[in-house]
Amino acid sequence: MKDNKISMAVIRRLPKYHRYLSQLMDRDINRISSKELSKIIGFSASQIRQDLNNFGGFGQQGYGYNVEALYREIGKILGLDREYKTVIIGAGNLGQALANYTNFSRFGYKLQAMFDVNPRLMGLRINDVEVKDVDLLGDYVRENNIDIAYVCTNRSSAQQIADILCKNGIKAVWNFTPVDLVLKKGAVVENIHLIENLFTLSYFLKENE
Amino acid sequence: MKDNKISMAVIRRLPKYHRYLSQLMDRDINRISSKELSKIIGFSASQIRQDLNNFGGFGQQGYGYNVEALYREIGKILGLDREYKTVIIGAGNLGQALANYTNFSRFGYKLQAMFDVNPRLMGLRINDVEVKDVDLLGDYVRENNIDIAYVCTNRSSAQQIADILCKNGIKAVWNFTPVDLVLKKGAVVENIHLIENLFTLSYFLKENE
Repeated sequence: MKDNKISMAVIRRLPKYHRYLSQLMDRDINRISSKELSKIIGFSASQIRQDLNNFGGFGQQGYGYNVEALYREIGKILGLDREYKTVIIGAGNLGQALANYTNFSRFGYKLQAMFDVNPRLMGLRINDVEVKDVDLLGDYVRENNIDIAYVCTNRSSAQQIADILCKNGIKAVWNFTPVDLVLKKGAVVENIHLIENLFTLSYFLKENE
Repeated sequence: MKDNKISMAVIRRLPKYHRYLSQLMDRDINRISSKELSKIIGFSASQIRQDLNNFGGFGQQGYGYNVEALYREIGKILGLDREYKTVIIGAGNLGQALANYTNFSRFGYKLQAMFDVNPRLMGLRINDVEVKDVDLLGDYVRENNIDIAYVCTNRSSAQQIADILCKNGIKAVWNFTPVDLVLKKGAVVENIHLIENLFTLSYFLKENE
């Protein structure tokens, strides 16, 4: 991919393409037209052609898309052609749920350690990963070149944790707290603001009634 | 709010306005200009004026916005002026994490029951809510007029659960599985596709390097 001007909207659709292409590969389907892809993925065929034109060379008139080539190219764009070292901060239910997702590891996100402030959780092993004292977080991130931190703490400690992470060279933060974190030194962030998503859902429910 | 043509983009920003207005109220701030709001929320002042103009009458030249009135109006638009009966399907780590979020209940989302297929979880009480046999799900949803179901099952049972929910009159599904559910009878859905969000994060990480 040469063109850096791919819009955010397209980027945010890529993971969904990736998922459906993977399912096609599981079913041994090697090529697919934009029309057929439209039926299963729910975007319009013209939207699909427009989106995938950004990467060039995968669709051929009368042939359709090469499923595996497109899957691999989208994976590369998303940065799935390498491994990421990850840590989880907050070893409560949510942190444990994330530690148990085998899917993350399958795509190269390798969980190295978990951290918590609660002494009763320290030393616990979840999916073979140890829960450590959060006081060790900064050193651990720096010494082990951790790429991504999943922040599952409570609201009140989230920014403090983010500061420690940034000071020690974290590259990306996956934020599950209902706080907009201020990150320094150019770390990137994605938020899962659960309550905001739930609010949107009740808006739709109300509109639908 | 009379105008039904508020764009999806605006709707999706409303929960964030709601959160920041709540914080202002906690700090006893009664009015705020679009400029000041811009500084804390991160949207441009003109974006804010445009967004909030959709609801009319809250901003006054030289005065700014009435924080509490705006907070209440946005809450009403989001459907937060009523209660919702909710259930959780899948009482694993993620389901338990959601059951323990006291914030949901505070905003009117009242958890009535949890369901699981695992006999070892049945009868367990999480945050004072009982885990029931998933075989009872359909009857329970119908008889108790459940509004919203949080689906935290594994991928392979998600659609089957969705079918049961729809058949029994569910109004909204909050889907945490990596599946695009097909819902009948006009139920609405919001998805938390974790892995897709993580892919987007690694895209940004890569672009930022």
